[in-house]
Amino acid sequence: MNQPRQARRRFLQASGIGMLGLAGLTGTPGKLLSGAEPFADSASPTGSRPASLKIGFPTYIFKHYDLDQMLAIMQRLAVKYACLRSFHLPLEKKPDEIAAIIAKVKAAGIVPYAGGVIYMKSEADVSRAMEYAKAAGFKLITASPAPHLLKLLSAKAREYDVRVAIHNHGPEDRNYPTPNAVYEKIKDLDPRIGICHDVGHTQRTGTDPSEAAVACADRLMDVHLKDVTSATANGHEAECGRGVVDIPKFLRTLIRIGYTGVVGVEHEKDMRDILPGLAESVGYTRGVLAVVERR
Amino acid sequence: MNQPRQARRRFLQASGIGMLGLAGLTGTPGKLLSGAEPFADSASPTGSRPASLKIGFPTYIFKHYDLDQMLAIMQRLAVKYACLRSFHLPLEKKPDEIAAIIAKVKAAGIVPYAGGVIYMKSEADVSRAMEYAKAAGFKLITASPAPHLLKLLSAKAREYDVRVAIHNHGPEDRNYPTPNAVYEKIKDLDPRIGICHDVGHTQRTGTDPSEAAVACADRLMDVHLKDVTSATANGHEAECGRGVVDIPKFLRTLIRIGYTGVVGVEHEKDMRDILPGLAESVGYTRGVLAVVERR
Repeated sequence: MNQPRQARRRFLQASGIGMLGLAGLTGTPGKLLSGAEPFADSASPTGSRPASLKIGFPTYIFKHYDLDQMLAIMQRLAVKYACLRSFHLPLEKKPDEIAAIIAKVKAAGIVPYAGGVIYMKSEADVSRAMEYAKAAGFKLITASPAPHLLKLLSAKAREYDVRVAIHNHGPEDRNYPTPNAVYEKIKDLDPRIGICHDVGHTQRTGTDPSEAAVACADRLMDVHLKDVTSATANGHEAECGRGVVDIPKFLRTLIRIGYTGVVGVEHEKDMRDILPGLAESVGYTRGVLAVVERR
Repeated sequence: MNQPRQARRRFLQASGIGMLGLAGLTGTPGKLLSGAEPFADSASPTGSRPASLKIGFPTYIFKHYDLDQMLAIMQRLAVKYACLRSFHLPLEKKPDEIAAIIAKVKAAGIVPYAGGVIYMKSEADVSRAMEYAKAAGFKLITASPAPHLLKLLSAKAREYDVRVAIHNHGPEDRNYPTPNAVYEKIKDLDPRIGICHDVGHTQRTGTDPSEAAVACADRLMDVHLKDVTSATANGHEAECGRGVVDIPKFLRTLIRIGYTGVVGVEHEKDMRDILPGLAESVGYTRGVLAVVERR
């Protein structure tokens, strides 16, 4: 939306997204999403069978892409759950502008299931985040709040009936390095305050992401899945399956603890040329799920 | 190699492959391939544990890409086994030219484990294919020979000590629609004559690819893996995991029958913009293998 139309068209051609057409981006549902090809992650609960884990994206990973580009990539990858970041749904927009963007996302066949990660440094930030969630219709946001705001956040979450999943950012995050650290700070707050478990950052602290998921199961509201090259602070992003995270074990654990949220696949290695690595990571996640969900 | 250098550079930039640098393509080993990041498919036999299945590409899928572009894509996807098609290793080249191309492929960190698919309509085609394999150092070629040439092919395979895997092409292939049809025609020939099992084409005949693999296990020499949208002649290509092929079952079957060859992942849906869909299919295959190879 920030780029001139011509630059966008160049991008779509260069990345091959152009061939999709932009029909899905201008009001009619995306073809890929309404077509006959099944989603690996589209199963809904049937009878007593638990729902499949849903694959989505936190749109932070598309920070170098505008809204139309992002929607085109999601359609091409047949991934339909988005946690919208401020790049695509600015916090500063008025309620009717927010509603218009949400409508556009939905018209492209994408489910805007959450907003965030939203940073909160002041009481005003907390209030703004809640009004933002209300305007967008989000029942869930992901957040990184200053710890002194947690009690206010808990009260506001109850008032607005919005769940808030606090995101852990690894060894460099003084407040929330791991899901366990989040849990300690929120366990006595309103149950609407929970955790967005960033698997790659957790692994970089040396904590087993599966064990962290079990320990925080009752507050686990969202998941960011990426692989990393080592279980240390020096670990950097890798395509899922090429790093050290035991992703099969982690996804099995999510199923075992009854997690029914979204698995937000991330790719932060080639952020200006994200499609190939992101496609590989989505494929890997679907491949693992195709086996572990069968039993 | 057929395109001017400038056009190639434009391609590499547009597809983001440029960032890899072309060091790996001009004599020194590719960085990605010699780096610390593990291949999902690189495990070699340790003790009594069977080798992991190796992921490769039949380079037919890169028919719209020259040799350098193909090598750059393989490096980016960290896939190192190639069955070279005539687009990249022309049948008409002289032995020293063939050897030079093979040396370039190896210098990029890619293993040219086979050549093909080679079509054979005459006795001269059979002889040329054998001389081609000899010049390239191939111990395996994939082929689609006219049935009246099979006895000659068997004798030549023995003479040159080259294995020949005959490729099935689905419902439209009068001679070799399924691996089973190949098997019937070759079962009394030299054991160097075998099968390249194209999973997508097999599925389109309505035959279960896993059952076909079991039935032809003792002659199974190569595998082309792609997904298709339906188990009929009208089925068309899909990213692995989005179609009807039971890929987890198929890969489990390969392990069970002791197959130790290459799984050649294909993507024929967006052949002029192959990277995203191919990356997704490679990721899916690795994800399935990460689970089914563990037990």
